[in-house]
Amino acid sequence: MWDELITQLADALQTKGWMLATAESCTGGWIAKVCTDMAGSSAWFERGFVTYSNAAKQDMLDVQAVTLANNGAVSEAVTAEMAAGALSHSRAQVAVSVSGIAGPGGGTPTKPVGTVCFGWAMENGTTRTETCHFDGDREAVRQQSVEHALRILLQMTR
Amino acid sequence: MWDELITQLADALQTKGWMLATAESCTGGWIAKVCTDMAGSSAWFERGFVTYSNAAKQDMLDVQAVTLANNGAVSEAVTAEMAAGALSHSRAQVAVSVSGIAGPGGGTPTKPVGTVCFGWAMENGTTRTETCHFDGDREAVRQQSVEHALRILLQMTR
Repeated sequence: MWDELITQLADALQTKGWMLATAESCTGGWIAKVCTDMAGSSAWFERGFVTYSNAAKQDMLDVQAVTLANNGAVSEAVTAEMAAGALSHSRAQVAVSVSGIAGPGGGTPTKPVGTVCFGWAMENGTTRTETCHFDGDREAVRQQSVEHALRILLQMTR
Repeated sequence: MWDELITQLADALQTKGWMLATAESCTGGWIAKVCTDMAGSSAWFERGFVTYSNAAKQDMLDVQAVTLANNGAVSEAVTAEMAAGALSHSRAQVAVSVSGIAGPGGGTPTKPVGTVCFGWAMENGTTRTETCHFDGDREAVRQQSVEHALRILLQMTR
């Protein structure tokens, strides 16, 4: 589905000599799965954190309890800390993070189903966060989340 | 593809009040992705480790350097340590691990492409390891690995 995107990302990372780490909540490992679909991905994919529970976000990525309490797990404050944590807890030079409400449950008036937050962090200090609102069912929201995470990653890596 | 298997696994885990952690090398997050495809999986899926590099296996799961050196990353000795590490570094009661040669490269005479090692560990002390030889291309080897990991997990959880 994303062969061309992954090929371009692999080229961009390898040109820079960079490794990638992923920190995923709502996508649940799908980004890592898509990266490692590609033969030879061990040259540029270093590790992935599937931090589905809040405890996992805190234990594995040093997301702060106060950040979760004040902003909720689906927030740019949390995805910023997830991306930073993925960098500092890996040997990667670039990291991407995702936390969202894939549905069908879990939506609120201020954060309806389809709300997905992202974070990107690079060893050179560049960071970015973003919130998207995707339409569709759980599968569609997750799929659009994977694609968006990878597209911005490619933009930032080129 | 594995809806019925995941539904059964979710039921079995929830009946016991258990959470699951995954530790994946060659499947690269695919097991975690399949688990979290299911709405409500946060009730039984706790976290996942995508330990693609040897460094990740050591850092995240306490796989010993000597175990890697003596047995190679694709070995039951390593998947046993991966599963134990996934248990001790999570809040899960059951863990599954996978390390294999999905190909097309990386095969050797003693460990050809399609060689995949598995580990399972439960908080009650039950452990199991296994080596399988799967046919087909990278996609097919990874797919069969995901299915085998989940089928045995279901057997052990019921």
